[in-house]
Amino acid sequence: MSDPAEPKTINYLLLRRMGIDTHQEPVIYMRQDCYVCRSEGFDAQSRITVSTGTRSIIATVNMVTTDILSHQEVGLSESAWRRLQATEGEKATFSHAKPAESMSSVRGKIYGTPFSSQSATEIVNDITDGSYSDIQLASFVTSCAGSRLSTNEIISLTEAMVACGSKLDWGSQQVMDKHCVGGLPGNRTTPIVVAIVAASGLIMPKTSSRAITSPAGTADTMETLTPVNLSLKTMRSVVEKEGGCIAWGGSVSLSPADDILIRIEKALDLDSEGQLVASVISKKIAAGSTDVLIDIPIGVTAKVRSQNYGRKLAKQLIKTGEALGITVKTLFSDGLQPVGHGIGPALEARDILQVLNNHHHGPQDLRDRATTIAGEILEMGKVAPQGQGKRLAEHKISSGEAWVKFQAICEAQGGLKTPPNAAYTHDVAAGKAGIVSYINNRVIAKLAKLAGAPAAPSAGLDFHVKLGDKVCSDTPLFTIHSEAPGELQYAINFLNDHPGAISIEEESI
Amino acid sequence: MSDPAEPKTINYLLLRRMGIDTHQEPVIYMRQDCYVCRSEGFDAQSRITVSTGTRSIIATVNMVTTDILSHQEVGLSESAWRRLQATEGEKATFSHAKPAESMSSVRGKIYGTPFSSQSATEIVNDITDGSYSDIQLASFVTSCAGSRLSTNEIISLTEAMVACGSKLDWGSQQVMDKHCVGGLPGNRTTPIVVAIVAASGLIMPKTSSRAITSPAGTADTMETLTPVNLSLKTMRSVVEKEGGCIAWGGSVSLSPADDILIRIEKALDLDSEGQLVASVISKKIAAGSTDVLIDIPIGVTAKVRSQNYGRKLAKQLIKTGEALGITVKTLFSDGLQPVGHGIGPALEARDILQVLNNHHHGPQDLRDRATTIAGEILEMGKVAPQGQGKRLAEHKISSGEAWVKFQAICEAQGGLKTPPNAAYTHDVAAGKAGIVSYINNRVIAKLAKLAGAPAAPSAGLDFHVKLGDKVCSDTPLFTIHSEAPGELQYAINFLNDHPGAISIEEESI
Repeated sequence: MSDPAEPKTINYLLLRRMGIDTHQEPVIYMRQDCYVCRSEGFDAQSRITVSTGTRSIIATVNMVTTDILSHQEVGLSESAWRRLQATEGEKATFSHAKPAESMSSVRGKIYGTPFSSQSATEIVNDITDGSYSDIQLASFVTSCAGSRLSTNEIISLTEAMVACGSKLDWGSQQVMDKHCVGGLPGNRTTPIVVAIVAASGLIMPKTSSRAITSPAGTADTMETLTPVNLSLKTMRSVVEKEGGCIAWGGSVSLSPADDILIRIEKALDLDSEGQLVASVISKKIAAGSTDVLIDIPIGVTAKVRSQNYGRKLAKQLIKTGEALGITVKTLFSDGLQPVGHGIGPALEARDILQVLNNHHHGPQDLRDRATTIAGEILEMGKVAPQGQGKRLAEHKISSGEAWVKFQAICEAQGGLKTPPNAAYTHDVAAGKAGIVSYINNRVIAKLAKLAGAPAAPSAGLDFHVKLGDKVCSDTPLFTIHSEAPGELQYAINFLNDHPGAISIEEESI
Repeated sequence: MSDPAEPKTINYLLLRRMGIDTHQEPVIYMRQDCYVCRSEGFDAQSRITVSTGTRSIIATVNMVTTDILSHQEVGLSESAWRRLQATEGEKATFSHAKPAESMSSVRGKIYGTPFSSQSATEIVNDITDGSYSDIQLASFVTSCAGSRLSTNEIISLTEAMVACGSKLDWGSQQVMDKHCVGGLPGNRTTPIVVAIVAASGLIMPKTSSRAITSPAGTADTMETLTPVNLSLKTMRSVVEKEGGCIAWGGSVSLSPADDILIRIEKALDLDSEGQLVASVISKKIAAGSTDVLIDIPIGVTAKVRSQNYGRKLAKQLIKTGEALGITVKTLFSDGLQPVGHGIGPALEARDILQVLNNHHHGPQDLRDRATTIAGEILEMGKVAPQGQGKRLAEHKISSGEAWVKFQAICEAQGGLKTPPNAAYTHDVAAGKAGIVSYINNRVIAKLAKLAGAPAAPSAGLDFHVKLGDKVCSDTPLFTIHSEAPGELQYAINFLNDHPGAISIEEESI
């Protein structure tokens, strides 16, 4: 005889790809009236574990009240589908996700208890596992923001971030690296530096990030020139052949927790001294670097606004590097105005090509910064005597050796291509005659982002002036580049709302 | 001749209700390949403004890559549909949402700049408008958590929260109110206090919140007895007739920003002194109260853990009340163990009914706390001489007057009903003989929540013992109540993982 009661054995449902892109947060779509929902007591926003025979993920429930799903089905968002490596119609089971216990350490931190080495490890592991929801990630990021982390906490977080990802080994005593603390639009020295350093015989397998809060990261810029989503195997073969590469760090799974945090920091437009140090140093350790030069531009509207904060940051970077066994050197540079002409992936790529080609339009300030940094690295790598690094670096460009090396690296990564051009442009004129006396980097960066950078690679700003330049009323200060008219218009509206982005001072007679 | 270029005029799409419940965050589902998406440059997670002829909302984009939407359609989540008051097939237009400018003040706060009166107003207005995404809300809540807000900041936030909602006027010189800072499971004195105070001739139009991080709020508990989603008109007629009511504050739109923040605080399980004060006082001012008694239970596992912190909180509450023109009095009470027997909406409702009925099972501790609080309010309202309030309150229960008044209030709110019973229960035995020496309120509250409270109204815990009780090994300490077997099992698993929830000390011979 059959049992008239509700069948207890059917605790699985069939997976369906919904084709809904929710960005990184994995979402599961469940019928409110399905047996699993009712028996497990799931609700909209519940965090649940979804398991197939082979894998399991944590996802956030969205309840479906219509017939877009059948009673036997649950839907997965694109990120959930990818993480679970699901197949259409595959059986899955469901349970309440265990609450991320490490959130109690985050709450503790908010209330004033510092992270311990153990709690840092637990938090970073939970983040890497995808156990934190977006709002939990936002709370963690905020709890670390500003100067809330001590040196010990930073070291603990850095160690935990290194431990949760893979670590590269280049089989070389010295592996050179660089990093720029950022905040300065257009400061895209890395590709030039790698070309110079590799052309000088040192090993420089550079992994770069995408933009966090800026209109372009080195990975975004390089992607307009050559593939940067390199597998570890490809990266290795590029470096073996050419001594250097310029790859996206995320594609080789170095410090995966950091990539998750970066998305939230970006959405909040929030920087944190501690997160910054942990992010930079963990990526460097994981990348197998031994000698790292860190460029810290300082300016009132740069990321680092004062010499004092710059020195504090430098100390944290050097100490954390030391604690984890690498040599870190820092360099302070002028952060008063954008570097080069272009701001945005493709426009910055154009500047790089012009510098490497000794083109007369190549921005001198970008060239000068790149050779200063490369020079320090050449000295750290002992291929130039103390005080002679910059001169050697300069020679590598003027001789064409750096350009040859750059082309060879791009070829090895998958081929050198031409950066794209934007479909829509708009010139912004000075509006009055005088001297360019002030540029607000933050407003300029925001403008380039509203124009579409970095998601739209050809979007951004093309600067025609520098601080101190004389302009007439109709001199174009810069050109906005955009891939969509809506974004162009939005950037123009924002500029109209923020007339103080660039100041023109009338000349005294 | 027709223009072969892309038609520029079609910038609208037709709204479709997707039947997807994303909780509060409004989501819009757009085809990745639709003209609007491409021309505006929208991306997954973009925040966009959706406008019909009459209304507009800000929603987060989820991209659709399959045919669940036609090229002419966009889908809305349930919360987006409700907020926009949309109709099926209605035309809508779309643009990038202006970034919430007030987030720069949140970032400022995170970096150390206090909120000003103006920035507090801008933030609260943006939150009320729905301009903040969930992760921005999480960052704001975290930036205020712990003791990060000064008295001035708290006053500014409170004023802003009052200003953004409606404010009630009861046409009475004195309007009594109470609040409990919470953290003590089962401490459901409010319905009893309102019955006593109203039965004594004072005006007490009580608006209560739902649970933030606890297994039940007063609104959740009362909802198992009578409707609490009262319109302002209904509330007014109840109070005119009976002198008191017990309504859900959210349904009358008092301090709407607070209701949005409460959802995030709940998800993060995060409390904040400043938010707490702003939340309590803003709701009281908005409710038109003039005299407020605030109960602060103190205990190592209560929300307020120390006398020191209790005094600090009391000072902030009194000062903020004073700055906004109301009289606030505070009362410290014992926060060592749960109050009454039940924890969870329906179980707490049962305790209330037993106290009001002078039932011999009625928990004495709940009765005692309710009469202490009511007594203070009777003295503030000058219907009892100083020192005589508690005696009068006690008389109102023993005489049956409070029960008559409670029934009359429930009838006026829509009828008194019987609280539901849970389908699944599980007894938890002491496990060894001895004396109950310690109860961890936080673990107990979490257990009741995992059992399903407050979303499942009959779920929770029913306590059979108090601190100091003698138990045998098989004495049941409490019974877990649940509406779904999955939740029951989850609570049991959690209890097994946390054996220290209740300590039994062996008696010395």
